[in-house]
Amino acid sequence: MKQIQRANERDGQRELPAIHPLRGYESLIDLLRLCGRNFYERGWSLATSSNYSVVLQNRPVELIITASGCDKGQLGRDDFVHIGADGLPTIDGQPKSSAETMLHVMLAEQDGVGAILHTHSVWGTLLSDYFCDAGGFELFGYEMLKGLSGVTSHLHRQWVQIFENSQNVPRLAQVVKNGLSHKDSSSNRDPLPHGFLIRNHGLYAWGRDIAEARRHVEVFEFLFECVGRKLAWTCT
Amino acid sequence: MKQIQRANERDGQRELPAIHPLRGYESLIDLLRLCGRNFYERGWSLATSSNYSVVLQNRPVELIITASGCDKGQLGRDDFVHIGADGLPTIDGQPKSSAETMLHVMLAEQDGVGAILHTHSVWGTLLSDYFCDAGGFELFGYEMLKGLSGVTSHLHRQWVQIFENSQNVPRLAQVVKNGLSHKDSSSNRDPLPHGFLIRNHGLYAWGRDIAEARRHVEVFEFLFECVGRKLAWTCT
Amino acid sequence: MKQIQRANERDGQRELPAIHPLRGYESLIDLLRLCGRNFYERGWSLATSSNYSVVLQNRPVELIITASGCDKGQLGRDDFVHIGADGLPTIDGQPKSSAETMLHVMLAEQDGVGAILHTHSVWGTLLSDYFCDAGGFELFGYEMLKGLSGVTSHLHRQWVQIFENSQNVPRLAQVVKNGLSHKDSSSNRDPLPHGFLIRNHGLYAWGRDIAEARRHVEVFEFLFECVGRKLAWTCT
Amino acid sequence: MKQIQRANERDGQRELPAIHPLRGYESLIDLLRLCGRNFYERGWSLATSSNYSVVLQNRPVELIITASGCDKGQLGRDDFVHIGADGLPTIDGQPKSSAETMLHVMLAEQDGVGAILHTHSVWGTLLSDYFCDAGGFELFGYEMLKGLSGVTSHLHRQWVQIFENSQNVPRLAQVVKNGLSHKDSSSNRDPLPHGFLIRNHGLYAWGRDIAEARRHVEVFEFLFECVGRKLAWTCT
Repeated sequence: MKQIQRANERDGQRELPAIHPLRGYESLIDLLRLCGRNFYERGWSLATSSNYSVVLQNRPVELIITASGCDKGQLGRDDFVHIGADGLPTIDGQPKSSAETMLHVMLAEQDGVGAILHTHSVWGTLLSDYFCDAGGFELFGYEMLKGLSGVTSHLHRQWVQIFENSQNVPRLAQVVKNGLSHKDSSSNRDPLPHGFLIRNHGLYAWGRDIAEARRHVEVFEFLFECVGRKLAWTCT
Repeated sequence: MKQIQRANERDGQRELPAIHPLRGYESLIDLLRLCGRNFYERGWSLATSSNYSVVLQNRPVELIITASGCDKGQLGRDDFVHIGADGLPTIDGQPKSSAETMLHVMLAEQDGVGAILHTHSVWGTLLSDYFCDAGGFELFGYEMLKGLSGVTSHLHRQWVQIFENSQNVPRLAQVVKNGLSHKDSSSNRDPLPHGFLIRNHGLYAWGRDIAEARRHVEVFEFLFECVGRKLAWTCT
Repeated sequence: MKQIQRANERDGQRELPAIHPLRGYESLIDLLRLCGRNFYERGWSLATSSNYSVVLQNRPVELIITASGCDKGQLGRDDFVHIGADGLPTIDGQPKSSAETMLHVMLAEQDGVGAILHTHSVWGTLLSDYFCDAGGFELFGYEMLKGLSGVTSHLHRQWVQIFENSQNVPRLAQVVKNGLSHKDSSSNRDPLPHGFLIRNHGLYAWGRDIAEARRHVEVFEFLFECVGRKLAWTCT
Repeated sequence: MKQIQRANERDGQRELPAIHPLRGYESLIDLLRLCGRNFYERGWSLATSSNYSVVLQNRPVELIITASGCDKGQLGRDDFVHIGADGLPTIDGQPKSSAETMLHVMLAEQDGVGAILHTHSVWGTLLSDYFCDAGGFELFGYEMLKGLSGVTSHLHRQWVQIFENSQNVPRLAQVVKNGLSHKDSSSNRDPLPHGFLIRNHGLYAWGRDIAEARRHVEVFEFLFECVGRKLAWTCT
């Protein structure tokens, strides 16, 4: 795959040791590293914020996730952890996984989720605070919405749910899980499609595979910037 | 050509197979790939949005256009389709072309159109909505206008027409075509020169060749940013 | 020089032919090419706008300037012209020089001017219009001012003069020249130090050599962004 | 270390001479050069502004700091100076060190300070002026705050102290030093944690090592942009 070749050419990435929990997953890991480099350059993953995972199996969950505290613009192949359904490394000697691992595990349990990307952008941060009291905000009328899987028209109404931030990640994961399974009867909204925001914290988006999750991140971040800049025109 | 050499060096692009509908057009395709990389980096072609074509023949139309759903920052030589006047691939086994192919075909029928570039920027999106009720907006007084082919003074008045978005692309193409041939008697405006906007969707620009079309895109996107930022100073 | 090595590595620049008006000046040209790549990436030289020159001799003027209509992000070694005091190519067979050549020639006649860089940024464009009726605006209190040659304190007052744009470049050059030699008796302002703006057109800055001129461009463009963003806070 | 390999690959950096005051420190210097390239690209270190140091020893201070007047996007291995507690080069024949060397020396005397990074961004400049009369401003509620060493919750309150700018750097260093040792009894604020602003001048941040200092810079600059953009929504 050309993306992987390119990533390796650019940073001269060395091979993982012959015996390593991540051997055999290099191509997936390299795609996540490419996400990291790209998001870092755009300012969506500064200061070791944000985290990315690829799901190997939904039930029971098995996934590979970024290790805690890594510079997302410089991810190495060994900056990832193989994690089980309990959110713990499957094999000893791996680095500590991201503090938000349980959010990834919970999302990975959902049908059709193959990759989860969390970004931490300025516009995502600002909107997640601005619209928090309203519980979220609607994206409507944008052609860019068609970049979300299953959306076929700009007239689609996408609700971006916002959750209050918490350092208790397992509890936060539970709150989000309720949102995922809850169909809003009054507004007839779909349960949390494609992504959501955590207040002053950023975006979680997912997709069937890494490419789709990345496309969803780009759709949301683009539209966040649209909404944020429009507010600068109209706020007083 | 140095641009092509460079593109290839940077991504180690492989040769197309010896028998392939696009063999012989590699140099044109590589210029479109370079547009993609550049526009993607600037945030004008995120999330597989936007599409680019080069016109091989005006009547009947023959063109090469980006395939549907490709990451514009990572276009490969095989991410393009050879298309005829009906908007369909000329040879079986090619990928699906962009959903907006018929807009490209219609534009390619016009005299002097050698390349068509569609971008999808934040400022283009915002202005296309803000000025939609007015039918468009005027660019005036900017030296940058001279980057548009045939414009020789900053005192030129460039009207940027805005069309309502539609998922019915053939019909949208027809509406735009009427705009292309319609000379506005009251304002004495030229029929759709250089480019136009689709509401909440972005810019279509063209030129005699890829370099000119790209220059036109850069002129419009630069001026969209000027107009958009100026609005942030003055709106209340 | 490492900057040049690097530039060449990145684009595999070929040597100029053995007999060529620019042979022997490759190192200076490569520094201008590096300016172009950098300014283009920052959005200060889009759409073939802007132009750069290095002065070989002040009296009579001899300089090397970008050819007309070149993509500033992709300048080749042969995208430059060797020009005499009349603004014309010194040797036949060279490309056409930039339309604004006479502004460069006039500036190159001044003492201590070794390089002239014209950029065309969004913020420069906006401020040059906003403050045009006032004749210019003052930069004061910024540490960044110390990046201007001879300035030793943030308490320095830098007047940024704005000239009305004109397609008559020789006449515009004459108007600017008057500004260069005119000491304002009431405000005790220095005659046009370091740079000036042309309305809706952008910045001209210069320095003893390319590095200094480039530093001056970066100082001005940084401060234009500061002033422009501050206006977005305060305008209504 | 892969970061260093990469830096060298990208600019073909040559080895220092066999006898040179900085021999043996190449790996640290290369990390600072990487900071420079990154900060320059983001616009936080334009026009030779800003300076970076790594602390070799706290008492008496021994550090390596950027030389005066260097382009931060192009730092070579010889663009650094080995400095003693008096702020002077330890060995003759080194370049002049940054004008703000004594601020680095003073900070390097503090416990746990292994690297000091000074950036000069647009948002830092604007906020340092806007909030100067208030003496500073508080960052609160942002998940990004957890990127600051020792901060474990977004509910942390981070005070960003602002000092009036001065060209008398030793005196400025003394004023800041008082701030570093001064515990505010009324607000119970910690003495200057992680970083501070100088009015219209920019950010000083530090950490145990270069990676931590860089993370702190990214946290502050990200949050400055958040605060600055929010002001554009609410100012009138």
